[in-house]
Amino acid sequence: MSIVEPRTLSGFMELLPPDQIKMERLMEVLRRTYSVYGFTPLDTPVIESSEVLLAKGGGETEKQVYRFQKGDSDLSLRFDLTVPLAKYVALHYNDLTFPFRRYQIGKVYRGERAQRGRFREFYQADIDVIGDGKLDIVNEAEIPAIIYRTFTELGLKNFKIHINNRKLLNGFYDMNGMLSRASLIMRTVDKLDKIGPEKVREILMSPEVGMYAQKADSVLEFTAVKGDNEDVFRYLEQMRGMDAQYDEGLDELHTIVQCLEDLGVPQENYTIDLSIARGLDYYTGTVYETIITSHPEIGSVCSGGRYDNLAEYYTNKTLPGVGISIGLTRLFYVLNEQNMLSDTIITSPCDVLVIPMMEDRSFAMTAAARFRQSDIRTQFYAEQKKFKAKMSYADKLKVPFAVILGEDEAESNVYSVKNMRTGEQVKLAPEEAVAYVQQELEKMNQGRLILDD
Amino acid sequence: MSIVEPRTLSGFMELLPPDQIKMERLMEVLRRTYSVYGFTPLDTPVIESSEVLLAKGGGETEKQVYRFQKGDSDLSLRFDLTVPLAKYVALHYNDLTFPFRRYQIGKVYRGERAQRGRFREFYQADIDVIGDGKLDIVNEAEIPAIIYRTFTELGLKNFKIHINNRKLLNGFYDMNGMLSRASLIMRTVDKLDKIGPEKVREILMSPEVGMYAQKADSVLEFTAVKGDNEDVFRYLEQMRGMDAQYDEGLDELHTIVQCLEDLGVPQENYTIDLSIARGLDYYTGTVYETIITSHPEIGSVCSGGRYDNLAEYYTNKTLPGVGISIGLTRLFYVLNEQNMLSDTIITSPCDVLVIPMMEDRSFAMTAAARFRQSDIRTQFYAEQKKFKAKMSYADKLKVPFAVILGEDEAESNVYSVKNMRTGEQVKLAPEEAVAYVQQELEKMNQGRLILDD
Repeated sequence: MSIVEPRTLSGFMELLPPDQIKMERLMEVLRRTYSVYGFTPLDTPVIESSEVLLAKGGGETEKQVYRFQKGDSDLSLRFDLTVPLAKYVALHYNDLTFPFRRYQIGKVYRGERAQRGRFREFYQADIDVIGDGKLDIVNEAEIPAIIYRTFTELGLKNFKIHINNRKLLNGFYDMNGMLSRASLIMRTVDKLDKIGPEKVREILMSPEVGMYAQKADSVLEFTAVKGDNEDVFRYLEQMRGMDAQYDEGLDELHTIVQCLEDLGVPQENYTIDLSIARGLDYYTGTVYETIITSHPEIGSVCSGGRYDNLAEYYTNKTLPGVGISIGLTRLFYVLNEQNMLSDTIITSPCDVLVIPMMEDRSFAMTAAARFRQSDIRTQFYAEQKKFKAKMSYADKLKVPFAVILGEDEAESNVYSVKNMRTGEQVKLAPEEAVAYVQQELEKMNQGRLILDD
Repeated sequence: MSIVEPRTLSGFMELLPPDQIKMERLMEVLRRTYSVYGFTPLDTPVIESSEVLLAKGGGETEKQVYRFQKGDSDLSLRFDLTVPLAKYVALHYNDLTFPFRRYQIGKVYRGERAQRGRFREFYQADIDVIGDGKLDIVNEAEIPAIIYRTFTELGLKNFKIHINNRKLLNGFYDMNGMLSRASLIMRTVDKLDKIGPEKVREILMSPEVGMYAQKADSVLEFTAVKGDNEDVFRYLEQMRGMDAQYDEGLDELHTIVQCLEDLGVPQENYTIDLSIARGLDYYTGTVYETIITSHPEIGSVCSGGRYDNLAEYYTNKTLPGVGISIGLTRLFYVLNEQNMLSDTIITSPCDVLVIPMMEDRSFAMTAAARFRQSDIRTQFYAEQKKFKAKMSYADKLKVPFAVILGEDEAESNVYSVKNMRTGEQVKLAPEEAVAYVQQELEKMNQGRLILDD
């Protein structure tokens, strides 16, 4: 038979088992955290009609879409989870209860040029709250609390959520007579951390944007305001009363900081950052970015914001919302590259490897069933190999416990339990063995996925 | 702006939130059960190179594949999880430890003609154990125990795992001089439950298969053997010694039944069924089908078997294995249609809806944080609506508990907790409220997903 060389397409992540278990842990923490904040899980098709998926049309995205014909149908693979959400909410509007809070963790597809750390198939983890006509500011305030809990549960400590407000920005541009160019300016300022203030100033003063030096400087001054939240508020309050939208944005920022205090989010994990704008035009209120402070070069690992009209391409209903997205595959890749993923969490397929050492395997089989009855992840080692080969299997898989069962154990109805990390071996009655393993596993499982000290 | 009518493609399942939560529960039970049996989670790309994915070629499947060009690449969406597993094992052979035990729950794609209950995008949940060169029979024996635990944890009671052995069948055909037609016969016999014995007899005697009446009858007699396992073994033992392969298959069946006893699987949940063969040619040992006994018309909901050569298209290494697959999307659809899914399990996005009844929302916000701190799924109701609208929101979502917080509660630092199922309302100190809700939730969460009495 002729052999086809097996390969996985470039730009497609395919993990070995220990890494896959870490990735599963990452997703599990997200699911749990989002659930704790009252978001319901959602799943939508990967394939949609191109007409529906590309209703907005245009832009870089459309070029990257995986689009193809099947029979008479023009189909596309989803390139994010926002467009499918918009479709879902418009389509099922009458069956949903608003505010509608959903999370979705799913694969999306973009045929980008393949390069290190860029993926063509990647997981996004999104949460959104969608209102019917209106949506209270408190929803925007809760988002950083959710980000805080998510990253904290993962084990990350050195991270900061950067918060800004598009109304505040628009108001500021308006009071300075720059409103018509606000969108252009924001897109330029968004590049601050990539290209630096000098280059941003240049672009602001280029014919494309066309600002006078003095105005460019005032924009740069505004975006450069740093300090703790009180300092920033003091600076911002000086301009109160000059523009209605500015004042509204400022009030919203105050509300958000107040809520974060009520919710117990530590001050060191968030900051008002007047330099972030999120390039996308559809954000209209609070915007967020999240920086791993030990690795700012990675860029934002969790971003989003408030928008006024989720589904304008599918319905005349006004559906404002607020949401954030984590690019999970890239986050996992980066954390792995930076050696920030724990090597002490259990990555073996099982917690207990039951190793029968006698012809009759009934005793060992019953032992395996007993561990499983107590929800301990257990493998029965069934292959006919020498003892050394069996132990080497446990070693290679980094199984925490080997339970070795020979004639002696069967006769006195005890289990020999070997802690593979310490080498310690004990003989215990069955119930004691189960209890001992449970207790030790609990200790081993206390570590977080991300190491960050 | 022109509106595009939102729609979801036919043949693609898209659930409303309460059903989605049930589907998540289904997947969660599978993940947990497979983990308890020592299977490691795996994830592979949805898109593969067509050359790799279709290495085997031919057959009905290839016509159904979603295949397309992107740039210079000829790509296909996976149509099952077995071919990607074969590729994975061949590709990562040197990094894996054998026996390699993995589970995978993922979407697969088949462009079948759309009809009720048929899906073009559907979840499969597969487990496989892959050996390097050899694989012990005990692995085949554990499979029905895993199926048993899976369905039992889901709440299913009336189901039966049908077990047969291809060696036994081949041996039987050989000793009767039908070996050259064994594959044809098995495929015909596989249709027994669909077309009945009369029609099967007709096909067996047709020119295509070409059996004499007497031989066709002996095949039908063999496959019709019923009774408890002892009866079936008594019948099978009569033919021992007539064919080596037959004897081997019979020994394997004995081992499996012995193991199932050791593993504590009740006799009423499995049976030797000489009529099943699984049409696919690559099965070589034990084969399995699982029938919901109250709904046999659904057909097998979990099938699989032993095979000798997983990855022959990708490597010269011999990689025998055993595996089973559940068509999750179809299973969910069928259970839902049959009204077998519980209506008492909690399907709301949150367990507690915190309803602030005063201008200052700090007290309520803190309350929400407190519930979440105890991992209780909590939503803060943020919209400015009348009390009635807020309660109606809780009602519509079937939230189990509303926590109503007004001036009174804030002053005396208590929470008014309303059990929305009973209508009962109590005022409790914060810690008591958390403990009360936890305790009640535990009771509510004890139900199984599937109702089957």
